[in-house]
Amino acid sequence: MKTKLGVKNCLYPLPTTLVGTMMNGKPAFNTIAHVGIMDFISVSLGMNKIHHTNAGIKGSGSFSINIPREDMVKITDYCGLVSGRDVDKGALFEIFYGELGNAPMIKDCPINMECKLIKTVEFPKHDVFMGEIVQAYCDEECLTDGVVDFAKVRPILFAMNDKGYWKLGERFAKAWKIGKELKTGT
Amino acid sequence: MKTKLGVKNCLYPLPTTLVGTMMNGKPAFNTIAHVGIMDFISVSLGMNKIHHTNAGIKGSGSFSINIPREDMVKITDYCGLVSGRDVDKGALFEIFYGELGNAPMIKDCPINMECKLIKTVEFPKHDVFMGEIVQAYCDEECLTDGVVDFAKVRPILFAMNDKGYWKLGERFAKAWKIGKELKTGT
Repeated sequence: MKTKLGVKNCLYPLPTTLVGTMMNGKPAFNTIAHVGIMDFISVSLGMNKIHHTNAGIKGSGSFSINIPREDMVKITDYCGLVSGRDVDKGALFEIFYGELGNAPMIKDCPINMECKLIKTVEFPKHDVFMGEIVQAYCDEECLTDGVVDFAKVRPILFAMNDKGYWKLGERFAKAWKIGKELKTGT
Repeated sequence: MKTKLGVKNCLYPLPTTLVGTMMNGKPAFNTIAHVGIMDFISVSLGMNKIHHTNAGIKGSGSFSINIPREDMVKITDYCGLVSGRDVDKGALFEIFYGELGNAPMIKDCPINMECKLIKTVEFPKHDVFMGEIVQAYCDEECLTDGVVDFAKVRPILFAMNDKGYWKLGERFAKAWKIGKELKTGT
């Protein structure tokens, strides 16, 4: 039996990220889980216009996406609770810079991507920033045979519905493979 | 130690969805995991232009997002392996329609959202369709106290890096709460 939920977004869980940018020459961060993939090399951030960091992304034309580990859940949530207007969140992390030079990345996060802003789509209360990935970084110990292994990354998945942070479970099937069993004549 | 991965999208895992639309008056489906959230009521689909269903979304101005359960992984993967040009994927599922009337939804998927196309952003090889949710549906048995419970939904999470389908793990913290412990003076 289906229950109608109304106009309710249920496209969860999504990976919780720490988005970095430069504000007045200093690194700033914010917690964003309303993310998306546009194409193989492009990503999106749906960021409420109230966020301090939106101006940094618009001004610098660059941002970073940092994927925190499960055990960073407290600091990750904290970065979504306090504004950069009040707290210097850049001071909370050890930071490195990559090829863009103005996309601050968090060393302690197992995955980092530096992105060039390519398009901004306006929504009533949100800026949707679309960025092209310039370089991605992964902690060596989170790779298996040179490929990112999310069982080692231990991302924090977010669902708005229950305001929950969820762990990633086990890998249980291969894409473009498990379904082949249903193909007739193969 | 950070390893450079090059221009590699690592914004995973994302929920695997079955996207529905009408093609020449018949329901059609495709497997899409390059999804995103724009704002509270809007979502995006990053769909390669080679897909048969893109024309259906453009033509009808509507689509559905259906979230399959873990145990639907075989049929979900199959829908990404075969084209609607060759296989009538609408015939694979029991379908229902909602308020839009032209966004076919899959009864067996625990979550369904019918969406009105509001914007299309062109990427070199992809159409990014942005839709506003008109109505969301959830199987009664996947709710806990009226809220979507992803532990009951059992979504299929996808990572391109390892072409893996992953299970959702356990909920381990509350958003806008666990980080409060780091707030000074509270």
